[in-house]
Amino acid sequence: MDFNKRILTEETPNRVGEEVVLAGWVDSIRDHGGLTFIDLRDWSGKIQIVVDPDKEDAFRVAKTLRNEYVAGIVGTVRERAKDLVNDKVELGHLEIVATEVSLINRSKPIPFPIDGDGREIDENVRLKYRYIDLRRDRLKRIIRQRQDFILAIRKHLISKKFTEVITPLLTVTSPEGARDFIVPSRIHKGKAFVLPQAPQQYKQLLMAGGVDKYFQIAPCARDEDPRADRHAGVFYQIDLEMSFPTIDKLFGTCETLLEDVYKVVAPSKKFKEYPFPRIPYREALDRFGTDKPDLRYGLELLDITEIVKDHTEFGVFNQAESVKAIVVPHQYEWTRKEIDSMEELAKKEGAKGLAYIKYENGKPTGGISKFISPVEDKLTDAFRKHIEKVEETETDLQAGIVFFVADKPEKANKVLGKVRIRLAEVLELQDPNLMAFAWIQEFPFYEINEDTGRLDFGHNPFSMPVGGVEAFDAEDPLTIISDQYDLAFNGYEVLSGSIRNHDPEVLVRAFERVGYDRDVVKQKFGALYTAFQYGVPPHGGWAIGLDRLFMELINEPNIRDVYAFPKSSNGMDIMMGAPSVPDEEDLKVLGITLPKVKPKN
Amino acid sequence: MDFNKRILTEETPNRVGEEVVLAGWVDSIRDHGGLTFIDLRDWSGKIQIVVDPDKEDAFRVAKTLRNEYVAGIVGTVRERAKDLVNDKVELGHLEIVATEVSLINRSKPIPFPIDGDGREIDENVRLKYRYIDLRRDRLKRIIRQRQDFILAIRKHLISKKFTEVITPLLTVTSPEGARDFIVPSRIHKGKAFVLPQAPQQYKQLLMAGGVDKYFQIAPCARDEDPRADRHAGVFYQIDLEMSFPTIDKLFGTCETLLEDVYKVVAPSKKFKEYPFPRIPYREALDRFGTDKPDLRYGLELLDITEIVKDHTEFGVFNQAESVKAIVVPHQYEWTRKEIDSMEELAKKEGAKGLAYIKYENGKPTGGISKFISPVEDKLTDAFRKHIEKVEETETDLQAGIVFFVADKPEKANKVLGKVRIRLAEVLELQDPNLMAFAWIQEFPFYEINEDTGRLDFGHNPFSMPVGGVEAFDAEDPLTIISDQYDLAFNGYEVLSGSIRNHDPEVLVRAFERVGYDRDVVKQKFGALYTAFQYGVPPHGGWAIGLDRLFMELINEPNIRDVYAFPKSSNGMDIMMGAPSVPDEEDLKVLGITLPKVKPKN
Repeated sequence: MDFNKRILTEETPNRVGEEVVLAGWVDSIRDHGGLTFIDLRDWSGKIQIVVDPDKEDAFRVAKTLRNEYVAGIVGTVRERAKDLVNDKVELGHLEIVATEVSLINRSKPIPFPIDGDGREIDENVRLKYRYIDLRRDRLKRIIRQRQDFILAIRKHLISKKFTEVITPLLTVTSPEGARDFIVPSRIHKGKAFVLPQAPQQYKQLLMAGGVDKYFQIAPCARDEDPRADRHAGVFYQIDLEMSFPTIDKLFGTCETLLEDVYKVVAPSKKFKEYPFPRIPYREALDRFGTDKPDLRYGLELLDITEIVKDHTEFGVFNQAESVKAIVVPHQYEWTRKEIDSMEELAKKEGAKGLAYIKYENGKPTGGISKFISPVEDKLTDAFRKHIEKVEETETDLQAGIVFFVADKPEKANKVLGKVRIRLAEVLELQDPNLMAFAWIQEFPFYEINEDTGRLDFGHNPFSMPVGGVEAFDAEDPLTIISDQYDLAFNGYEVLSGSIRNHDPEVLVRAFERVGYDRDVVKQKFGALYTAFQYGVPPHGGWAIGLDRLFMELINEPNIRDVYAFPKSSNGMDIMMGAPSVPDEEDLKVLGITLPKVKPKN
Repeated sequence: MDFNKRILTEETPNRVGEEVVLAGWVDSIRDHGGLTFIDLRDWSGKIQIVVDPDKEDAFRVAKTLRNEYVAGIVGTVRERAKDLVNDKVELGHLEIVATEVSLINRSKPIPFPIDGDGREIDENVRLKYRYIDLRRDRLKRIIRQRQDFILAIRKHLISKKFTEVITPLLTVTSPEGARDFIVPSRIHKGKAFVLPQAPQQYKQLLMAGGVDKYFQIAPCARDEDPRADRHAGVFYQIDLEMSFPTIDKLFGTCETLLEDVYKVVAPSKKFKEYPFPRIPYREALDRFGTDKPDLRYGLELLDITEIVKDHTEFGVFNQAESVKAIVVPHQYEWTRKEIDSMEELAKKEGAKGLAYIKYENGKPTGGISKFISPVEDKLTDAFRKHIEKVEETETDLQAGIVFFVADKPEKANKVLGKVRIRLAEVLELQDPNLMAFAWIQEFPFYEINEDTGRLDFGHNPFSMPVGGVEAFDAEDPLTIISDQYDLAFNGYEVLSGSIRNHDPEVLVRAFERVGYDRDVVKQKFGALYTAFQYGVPPHGGWAIGLDRLFMELINEPNIRDVYAFPKSSNGMDIMMGAPSVPDEEDLKVLGITLPKVKPKN
């Protein structure tokens, strides 16, 4: 069997009537009317092979084949008779009449089926035999789409004169906020490299180096605790930076990129709004209860404090600092159980309770409706105006439900933000074919660290404050706004970026306010601090979480499945057995010690 | 100054007569006839700015500018008067008449000049201020070319239906033969990941997974001792693998790729031979004294043992196992000193000496000519036939020199191999515009390890032996040939690959001969060993050292300069200060200890 002549099954339609050589896996095999039929699978698809008993050698070999055996076929491509065409499969109109069948390699029975999407199978078993799992159509498609997507991104950015630069994998710590993976040095004993959490400092140094516009498909290594929606260890980002930036240039670059590349993997999707809307951070919290709102649907939060507070006898409303509502004008039969479960969610998020009223025939009923009767008409009026403004499909409140949270404004926002998402799930408002992107801007430069109670950076300390260095003269540091922005996509944060601080004095001032002096800046960010003395241009950029963006575009819910060889949910490579206990000899050469692993039982 | 309107200097030729906004660095500034002239540099090039004292504000700001200050310019693009055109620079026919000049950022005087190629500057100083060094034309060009080169590689391979797959950065040890970089795990204490030395096992597992043809621009991390011609820590390879391979497919893929992409960075180069010649390993050693010969020139080794041994009174020749010669038919005035230095080189390589004779007027003279007179004519005849065969430009031996080594054949080859390279340097035979690639095949599967004196793998243990599993029945394991191959390029090894062993029993046999039993194979290469039970297709591939190939194509002698941010020659990132002493706190979290670094005084 001459592999030089081998073609892929997808090439057979051009070879009807010709002799071809195919090789691949036995997807299934069956006897029918004396003939043997083999579905042969390769990277490109499947095709039916017919083996006639008259071809004695071929028939004898075919009889020995089992599922997942590797087989080679020489045969002639033939159109099937009309009544034998199978419309359900790609090459169902063709078959190969075999003249030669070779058994190339055997296979034990595989540990799980590969003909479905595999979601019902224990994920750790799938990961142990990932090479078998990869034969599954769903994962094959993801591998191809991921390649196509990344290539499209590269082509687009290079066409826009961005320069791709690979930055080092062995580096020093960077202030991304996660833990570093540490790589002890053998040559420089006692010292260690770290894997990059992001190329943040290098890309800023590239700007200092005169690289006008940079990008990279950059690996980012962060030693974070396992979480269901995060890939352990390493993820990839579209990392980008430009000199002489403006917000319009930075946003425009992203919008044009996404507009160009989404089609490669999700041609049937539509933008909800393009260019993407820009929403100040505070406004996002007030309207959606989160800084990464899902804008595919309305259900915006409404502040009704002025209408209700001290205008009824309802103590809960009167005692609260603010009262916010979420008005659901959708026809839906709410059960007691569903409403209870909604309240449970609210309590889990820290609310004392979740009040509600229903609307029937345009009138409030049930829940707390009897407490609010003094302001009933005023409220209904406000609700109607609100939904007219924020809902696209419904403008009436003949039927519906309204949920209330009375609490501090931050708490009310946060709780109703979660309620809003749950409502969208229940009401099936998350249109899988809609892409709702939104820029979130005007983040506070500083915030109070919840753990320490002290002032801390809200985001990246390398951002420029809006207003320049004078901004740091503000009496209340919490009023300082950062030139930092995120991009929300269907409820996820997929991008973060900023106009950078390129002035060493501004950098020093930024750190001073959180209690670090110039020496700390020099010591921690020596290269940047020094580079800033030598003609650094103004610059800014962003990074897109590539895996998150990609999985959302292809509607793949499992982040691990967008990697060919993912880590398991507890951060291991089950197939390879990583991490593993290193050889003592290797540790000795490095001069390091590791904790002893307790042997099992 | 509105950065939204900024253009690059390279765009000015299309904007003659129009007002433009430019921003970049002051490359130089000078007064001339009352006017101020600024050469403004950006990523795309340089252009001359003229500032007239009549534009008072602009002129005042221009006066404050210094070299490497960041400046913004608003002005009109103008064709220079004919007598003021500077043909030596790209945009020497244009200038910008400034109406507005902005000082955007200051710069201290830079630590070294950036207008030359920088090779004369202390490399560690250049590396410390790499962001300044990157403003140099030579490095800017390398960064651009490297991007273009890698993109061309990707486009080519994807057009040939190779699928790019990213494999994990955190993995287990792999048998590439170098030391691993170890990454201790925090979540799984006492265990560690290693950085991949190459994606060898993953790419074989992708074949098991049905990915028909894979490639990756893959980072490879190897903890090797510093060496001048190697980048410390991480390098990149074009990593490739295919199912159902043949040698012709594997070689053809590489040849077609290189034929397509070399033009992107080295359009003026020519292949010496295409498709590339194929040379058995033993023959390469015999003819060139190395398995990575530079084939841009002849100077092949000639075995003259039969002619000279025991046919003269010259003891050195009579006592040696073999006598080999290198015939240099080039007109060149050899000084005593040069010949001595050639002998020194030979002795450094382990030869007892380096005999020679000169040719003048077609006759041997000097050196050992008097010892060989009995066979003088026979030898001259052999030399003439030899050079007729191996030299392209010279076929006569009127003048020239011949060097001899009498030793064991391996030693004679090795020594003359080095002499050959030195000769090419002296005679300037290494044509910088010629690309001489050659496949080296038929490597021995096993070799005697020089350190241990025991049988060891010659190359990758995952190669197939020529002849399949029966090959292991050979009495002398040193006669077993591996289906492994290298690609030599102008004297460097730039590629290594093989047809893989895809049969678990063959793998076990391969390890048995070096004294490892099945359990060792299972334990060390568990994933592969298991995968081989589940229908693995025959497969093979190769990896090209991307950096080495690239630097040879662009004639860049310094491997560090093909990286944007290289490690120094002793493996440090001088700019960032990596490696560094980690925080005690971070080590504690990992539970590891590092050796104490002695404080400097």
